[in-house]
Amino acid sequence: MPIKGVLRPGHVAIRVLDLEEAVKHYTSIVGLREVARDGRGRVFLKAWDEWEHHSVILREAGQAGIDYMGWRVTSPEVMKQLSLDIIESGLCSDCKWLPAGDDPGTGERFSFVIPTGHTMELYAEKEMIASEVGYLNPEPWPEHGVIGMSPTRFDHCLLYGDDIDGTTKLFTEVLGFDLSEKVVDKNDGSLAGAFFACANKAHDVAFIRYPEKGKLHHISFFLDSWNDVLRAADLISMNNVSLDIGPTRHGITRGTTIYFFDPSGNRNEVFCGGYIQYPDKPVIHWDLDELGKGIFYHTRQLNEAFLTVVT
Amino acid sequence: MPIKGVLRPGHVAIRVLDLEEAVKHYTSIVGLREVARDGRGRVFLKAWDEWEHHSVILREAGQAGIDYMGWRVTSPEVMKQLSLDIIESGLCSDCKWLPAGDDPGTGERFSFVIPTGHTMELYAEKEMIASEVGYLNPEPWPEHGVIGMSPTRFDHCLLYGDDIDGTTKLFTEVLGFDLSEKVVDKNDGSLAGAFFACANKAHDVAFIRYPEKGKLHHISFFLDSWNDVLRAADLISMNNVSLDIGPTRHGITRGTTIYFFDPSGNRNEVFCGGYIQYPDKPVIHWDLDELGKGIFYHTRQLNEAFLTVVT
Amino acid sequence: MPIKGVLRPGHVAIRVLDLEEAVKHYTSIVGLREVARDGRGRVFLKAWDEWEHHSVILREAGQAGIDYMGWRVTSPEVMKQLSLDIIESGLCSDCKWLPAGDDPGTGERFSFVIPTGHTMELYAEKEMIASEVGYLNPEPWPEHGVIGMSPTRFDHCLLYGDDIDGTTKLFTEVLGFDLSEKVVDKNDGSLAGAFFACANKAHDVAFIRYPEKGKLHHISFFLDSWNDVLRAADLISMNNVSLDIGPTRHGITRGTTIYFFDPSGNRNEVFCGGYIQYPDKPVIHWDLDELGKGIFYHTRQLNEAFLTVVT
Amino acid sequence: MPIKGVLRPGHVAIRVLDLEEAVKHYTSIVGLREVARDGRGRVFLKAWDEWEHHSVILREAGQAGIDYMGWRVTSPEVMKQLSLDIIESGLCSDCKWLPAGDDPGTGERFSFVIPTGHTMELYAEKEMIASEVGYLNPEPWPEHGVIGMSPTRFDHCLLYGDDIDGTTKLFTEVLGFDLSEKVVDKNDGSLAGAFFACANKAHDVAFIRYPEKGKLHHISFFLDSWNDVLRAADLISMNNVSLDIGPTRHGITRGTTIYFFDPSGNRNEVFCGGYIQYPDKPVIHWDLDELGKGIFYHTRQLNEAFLTVVT
Repeated sequence: MPIKGVLRPGHVAIRVLDLEEAVKHYTSIVGLREVARDGRGRVFLKAWDEWEHHSVILREAGQAGIDYMGWRVTSPEVMKQLSLDIIESGLCSDCKWLPAGDDPGTGERFSFVIPTGHTMELYAEKEMIASEVGYLNPEPWPEHGVIGMSPTRFDHCLLYGDDIDGTTKLFTEVLGFDLSEKVVDKNDGSLAGAFFACANKAHDVAFIRYPEKGKLHHISFFLDSWNDVLRAADLISMNNVSLDIGPTRHGITRGTTIYFFDPSGNRNEVFCGGYIQYPDKPVIHWDLDELGKGIFYHTRQLNEAFLTVVT
Repeated sequence: MPIKGVLRPGHVAIRVLDLEEAVKHYTSIVGLREVARDGRGRVFLKAWDEWEHHSVILREAGQAGIDYMGWRVTSPEVMKQLSLDIIESGLCSDCKWLPAGDDPGTGERFSFVIPTGHTMELYAEKEMIASEVGYLNPEPWPEHGVIGMSPTRFDHCLLYGDDIDGTTKLFTEVLGFDLSEKVVDKNDGSLAGAFFACANKAHDVAFIRYPEKGKLHHISFFLDSWNDVLRAADLISMNNVSLDIGPTRHGITRGTTIYFFDPSGNRNEVFCGGYIQYPDKPVIHWDLDELGKGIFYHTRQLNEAFLTVVT
Repeated sequence: MPIKGVLRPGHVAIRVLDLEEAVKHYTSIVGLREVARDGRGRVFLKAWDEWEHHSVILREAGQAGIDYMGWRVTSPEVMKQLSLDIIESGLCSDCKWLPAGDDPGTGERFSFVIPTGHTMELYAEKEMIASEVGYLNPEPWPEHGVIGMSPTRFDHCLLYGDDIDGTTKLFTEVLGFDLSEKVVDKNDGSLAGAFFACANKAHDVAFIRYPEKGKLHHISFFLDSWNDVLRAADLISMNNVSLDIGPTRHGITRGTTIYFFDPSGNRNEVFCGGYIQYPDKPVIHWDLDELGKGIFYHTRQLNEAFLTVVT
Repeated sequence: MPIKGVLRPGHVAIRVLDLEEAVKHYTSIVGLREVARDGRGRVFLKAWDEWEHHSVILREAGQAGIDYMGWRVTSPEVMKQLSLDIIESGLCSDCKWLPAGDDPGTGERFSFVIPTGHTMELYAEKEMIASEVGYLNPEPWPEHGVIGMSPTRFDHCLLYGDDIDGTTKLFTEVLGFDLSEKVVDKNDGSLAGAFFACANKAHDVAFIRYPEKGKLHHISFFLDSWNDVLRAADLISMNNVSLDIGPTRHGITRGTTIYFFDPSGNRNEVFCGGYIQYPDKPVIHWDLDELGKGIFYHTRQLNEAFLTVVT
């Protein structure tokens, strides 16, 4: 297999204020499928083209935000080795193993808290629930399965936290990600933002420097076309979903996008496009004072929400 | 770095009957840029978003077709190891090292002939010629660089040859590719076609079983949207380029596409889309009698050219 | 009101071999809504954005084809005047009035047979069934009403018949249409094809010269985008609908299109685009030997079906 | 000819603060072609697909804004009749005839000031400058003529002024336009906005009630696709053009759009889409408190600029 180590973001677990409202949002508006509920009251969902048991986990709580983000790893052996590397790096805390079945349909998970305060985990096995078009002479999309925005997959998260430098060290030197793009403050050369890729996607996770630890800027789902971004925007209006900004384009990644909020205030994104990343692609450098163009390429300025609205 | 071993197809060298006509086709119609010419009369071209010296090599000869396809490998060490693996596998012939500079701007290359008779090579270093938008606060595309079909990159080849089984063994077991899709003849279970991926692309190279060795079905370039496929089709008409088929969609990969011919009869493709490949994605299986739908998803049948027109 | 006389094609009545199969095709594949059935076993359908009772009428018969095409006229007074003009022109035959209610939800109709042998009619009143988004603070499309190809309207017909010259005289001099495009045989200057517009559409009806009278080439429905043409093509495959050709572009009108057949062999088209027509726009002239490019702009040749498959 | 009376908006004359900067904007960014300059220092431009001498007139002055908007009328006879009707209505002032050649390439013009204070004019003849693809076996777009946003035509204006009621009476009862959409203040039933159509376009001119007379909200140009709207947005960024809002969709007309400013502060729009208007289509009614959704369908609120930034 060509991609070693971490393959992709496999799941994100978020907190919502009202579970059924959240399920309604993520199924009928975003277009995920509810797969399971567990004894702890959590709901597990997946996108139509994914083949693993779930990619989004919802848990009702008093405060919105992200519980953890899980990474699919090549094999249990690789997971074991990475767990040792993580512990040895001294960059993380609260390292622990969670047993198979702790999340339904999921094998063992190695959980660790990264320098920005976010909880991440690795897993190597998940029960398979096939893409809805199957793998035998498949159709390109499910004729009767176009629900809501109908993204093909959970794609990435943008997370806010303080120790970007430690987190960059962890992702690049320990976990083996590429730094695909970075945002640098000219004044002191400090890293204001960092974008990390597992393989060919422009990024699988990204971080923006922020005074608090463990914050969620958005969870993102992938669409096939700019037309689908328009359709998503229309659905947002039709359903009175809270819009942040869009349709627009990001300078960072080049993807076209729309940002909106779930009923609990967690920001969602659906987007399309992005260049292809390789380890030998030069790192893309954004000056911090160009970050407006980097995030909102058309308006060329950050809206207030970008810097302040997180969960 | 997350992708180990072979990263991507880095270049394809093809034979053309009239060099200047071919250059005109690949620059003004397809939209590549001429980068260099060498002492052997060859022309080297690249797409606007690539960062390596060249991705297409044209050589004038009496017969059209493919000379070789080159693969970018992670590092010289990995290249050395793979060369030993290739030799040891016994699957290839004519294995040899070509010195740095033998192709302009390119380091050493390890050349080998695969079971289907095609010449492949590995390389680990190429001079950098940046994407035309650069890597500092970049624009998403070059405002004054939209020439012809304007693909972002050389993407893959579809090759025709006899020993698909040996070639599959080579790509999967020695070179570490995923088999993303396969075409199987129900009658005897034999492999009629195989699609191999280096990383997240639906395929980086593919093979269809054909009685002769070393044949080229098409070289393919990547576009950003279905609208760009329409634009490419319009340019084909405006310039009286020989059209094979399209715009249409492939069942295999789901990509939208158009096939056309360069002035020498080498088939080109420009396409957009495709699902995301991972090592753990189930292999997509096509029955040979569904290959029509697999290749030309809308007509659901192979045209005669698909099976017979190769160079 | 700015458009005088004939406003648009208001309905087309076609014959199908199996009524329920046809209804299934026009509703679940094309995306029209069944509105009514009458005592004569006919089925009446409309597109989601139309505001009149019906635009497509299906009648089961032993042979497929077109019964009549109906034109919405500004007012009963204008209809009366046009009926007198038509009779006086001597160009038509079988002129007669049909009473209100003869077609459900429709007022009086003036029926006449034109030189190419087709039956046309005029009407000035039809019961209103609103667009599904309504007319009060409307959404742009019906969130839960995207069924099949989901065209906004029945748009035009292409008809085949012999007396193109008489028909051209009728449409331009008596009915007041513009000749937007024409196809001329250089050899003798004869009109091989004529495209007529009521107002701003590239055409509302068109004729190609053909040795038999009264034949239907296709009935056409309007889509909003080239992406919707792709979606229609995908639906054609998923449902094993008989494809004629496409996705592609027409030189004539510039519209992007796909041609397919209903279960009875009547050709359908869904298309998008087209330039804006005005009375003072120069007539677009196609040489007959360029008709390939005029009809199928990408292949630049007529397929056999274009010239021979009619109902 | 099917459309009687007024055919379409034929030209708009605007004031700019710096002529050469404005020409640069309207040619290299918007994509119009400079056709002529006259002895009064004015510049005349057209879009590639139009067939009349010019559609945009630029005049340098101390204050930006609109000088006049010209309407192409069917014939000199119709123009004469309409001039009499306009005078007789008592709704207009400053009615006068301007001689042929007063605007280059243009016949006589009848000028009149409408209740909202805007100067309008009628004309029946203009020198022809063909569409750049011509009218003989034409290509769908000019291969080497895609400059800037490359709209096909000048499409409409949105004008701000006080006497909306008088203007509505003029456009509907005297000039024969349809009222395609209206914006009504529930509180007192007053008309806050009115959209008028000559033929099939969703509107050819529109008015929003505003305390001052004679103001310009925007001049608008037509694009072929939502992809072209994205391209326009990208060009706006690349060229540091002042963006108002977009890409987005209008509820009113359903068109997709982007608003931006020329160097003098005159607002421009490029848009795509819109439903098809007919005289018998029910008038679309917007409650004033839904105008946010009517103008900016995705954000569902008016930005401050919409209500206050006019020239």
